[in-house]
Amino acid sequence: MDDAGLGLRSTMLDLGRKARQAASGLRAASAEGRTLALSAAARHLRSAQEAILAANALDCETALETGLPPAQIDRLALTPARVEAMAAGVEAVAQLPDPVGREMARWTRPNGLDIARVATPIGVIGLIYEARPGVTADAAALCLRSANAVILRCGSACLMSALAIHAAFEAGIVEAGLDPFAVQLVATPDRDAVGHLLEGLGGALDLLIPRGGRDLVQRVAAEARVPVLGHLEGVNHTYVHAAADPDKARAIVVNAKMRRVSVCGATETLLIDAAAAGALVAPLAKELAAAGCALRGDGRARALAPGMEAAAEEDWRTEYLAPILAVRVVDGLEEAVAHIAAYGSGHTDAIVTEDPHAAERFLRDVDSAIVLVNASTQFADGGEFGFGGEIGIATGRLHARGPVGAEQLMTYKYVVRGTGQTRP
Amino acid sequence: MDDAGLGLRSTMLDLGRKARQAASGLRAASAEGRTLALSAAARHLRSAQEAILAANALDCETALETGLPPAQIDRLALTPARVEAMAAGVEAVAQLPDPVGREMARWTRPNGLDIARVATPIGVIGLIYEARPGVTADAAALCLRSANAVILRCGSACLMSALAIHAAFEAGIVEAGLDPFAVQLVATPDRDAVGHLLEGLGGALDLLIPRGGRDLVQRVAAEARVPVLGHLEGVNHTYVHAAADPDKARAIVVNAKMRRVSVCGATETLLIDAAAAGALVAPLAKELAAAGCALRGDGRARALAPGMEAAAEEDWRTEYLAPILAVRVVDGLEEAVAHIAAYGSGHTDAIVTEDPHAAERFLRDVDSAIVLVNASTQFADGGEFGFGGEIGIATGRLHARGPVGAEQLMTYKYVVRGTGQTRP
Repeated sequence: MDDAGLGLRSTMLDLGRKARQAASGLRAASAEGRTLALSAAARHLRSAQEAILAANALDCETALETGLPPAQIDRLALTPARVEAMAAGVEAVAQLPDPVGREMARWTRPNGLDIARVATPIGVIGLIYEARPGVTADAAALCLRSANAVILRCGSACLMSALAIHAAFEAGIVEAGLDPFAVQLVATPDRDAVGHLLEGLGGALDLLIPRGGRDLVQRVAAEARVPVLGHLEGVNHTYVHAAADPDKARAIVVNAKMRRVSVCGATETLLIDAAAAGALVAPLAKELAAAGCALRGDGRARALAPGMEAAAEEDWRTEYLAPILAVRVVDGLEEAVAHIAAYGSGHTDAIVTEDPHAAERFLRDVDSAIVLVNASTQFADGGEFGFGGEIGIATGRLHARGPVGAEQLMTYKYVVRGTGQTRP
Repeated sequence: MDDAGLGLRSTMLDLGRKARQAASGLRAASAEGRTLALSAAARHLRSAQEAILAANALDCETALETGLPPAQIDRLALTPARVEAMAAGVEAVAQLPDPVGREMARWTRPNGLDIARVATPIGVIGLIYEARPGVTADAAALCLRSANAVILRCGSACLMSALAIHAAFEAGIVEAGLDPFAVQLVATPDRDAVGHLLEGLGGALDLLIPRGGRDLVQRVAAEARVPVLGHLEGVNHTYVHAAADPDKARAIVVNAKMRRVSVCGATETLLIDAAAAGALVAPLAKELAAAGCALRGDGRARALAPGMEAAAEEDWRTEYLAPILAVRVVDGLEEAVAHIAAYGSGHTDAIVTEDPHAAERFLRDVDSAIVLVNASTQFADGGEFGFGGEIGIATGRLHARGPVGAEQLMTYKYVVRGTGQTRP
């Protein structure tokens, strides 16, 4: 390791030590103290709006020069409204019930032992994310609410924005008298920093959360020496059932695809029942095309909407994050469920139907983190679920699944109160 | 890879495929079907008692010849009472509420979306355990209750016993008309089988649970390509506080150490407050010695009980699983908590005190999976918690902590019911 490498290593281990110490402090701090820090952070984010937008303008300039794809620039760019939404999100988290020490269950055994399952913080969390500046504030807020210390590592394309957001957030923590190292940001774009996080910072990290594309998540899952909560891509489906209400179907499909194409809850494949396809494919194709969406269909879909491009096998597995929609005509619910099982990523899938039996079968048989009936897949979001924000949508099967909010960043312990019991 | 290696690989991948298929079947099976299978398995375990004991006698003979340590032989040896306890445990699991499809939470959003968090099985679980035959039945029962398929890999020293137990259990599954591949046992002592499990059996495994010594758990955590639920050693403490009731303290300490020395909930270190040590160390030492326990103390403990061996630094970190107890005199609760944080394994720790403030501080400040007041650490057990059994005691901080029963072997999904909502 050269001098720069040794310097980075020492910097990263130092972040870990400070986070570990801050985690102890957070655990001992009162819920009120953490609420105050969150309210103060929201205030500082608002008053730092100009500085944040100026830093973001620098990031966007560099991104345009380096030719970042449009979907990524959409995720990167901030506006006054987005900064305000960020501050409002932190305020919403401040209003959430404090999860620390919450009794999740309590029961008494025949021998008189009183057993409680009590929520406790995980400890120190490392979050590796891509160039989405808003994640900085969301993640900091949720970790603070759950009394976890966090080390943030953003994509280098949003480093200037993240530094400005972090500075404002930190000012709130300091104002409330808490340890400023509760929320730390890796302040260098050096890619080797990720390697240090994967190694666990000398035992300081309890959990790593990769939030981003398949390559990042798979690298973290393969190389991490600490537990991982994976946030994989969303190859999401909306299935228009034979008994769908046509107006609802059109509104839901257009919203699920086009409301914002760069979010992980966007629908990427439309499955449409043969019984509904005749009446719906042509008007839907027209409406989507008018909204700027390109369609790639299977043979039966193309027969109903001339001019539609042909979908290749690869399209069924693709998270476009772009105004492109794959379209396939299926014969019934079972075929739709089978398609989702074969090609989906277990993120978010919806059915549109007025038939309650079909709805319940879909909800039962599709084993994704989020399954919906008669609603847009774009509701896949912690804020929309009432979590006050999210650190991402977990697509693994362990610990947490779906939107990860403060409650999902907790572990628990068993508290057993006895009166002298010994075990026979 | 030689022919034998290729053969093992193909056998293991086949186990994975069959488990994956069985998992689908289990999910579709009714709760009643799984309850029937569990009751039938308990019946078959009882009627196979002779065959199980005969197989176990072979295992014990080999173990004695190869010089297995006494604690491991204690864990290996079965008696008619232990086989009966095994069957009763399976029956207890049959009586548990079925966790599949349980609504864990449900709420309505201002926009009318009805959101439910619903428990669903994890899928296919691999369990790697040591030479404890009873784990075979416990794990099979809990996985069946939670509708997970399981692949069991036992320590080679108990393979004969495990095969006999597995055969009886499988007969119950078949009798109930369920897929016999729901519970599979790796039928070879070949150590390379573990390597295949670590690689995930071609994507078939959703979760690996290592249950055993530090070496096994650390190897699995380091090498596994699938999520891991670790079951580490129990370096457990009983802290006798200044305000302890002396009779309770004596009864609890003797039980916590000596009831069964080979279980992970056994106390390994006694911390005794300086204020209580004068009156308690000598009689406790006498009582423990009479029960066959060797003591290793720090200087202050030895001054109070002549003849006590000196403890070395290493003793504070040791899970003896033997009739040995490390003893240290501490000055107050804070020192006890600090000792546990420094040397404990986050498994199970107890305080004996009549002071409710001291009790609550200990319960809050000791961050172990199980913390107790005025009760024996040997209660660290899923059965004692009312879980009808356990697959082990998880010592990690993710997904599940403490006793892992059927409820802890579930994941969840969000079921969202709408009436046409789109996201603004």
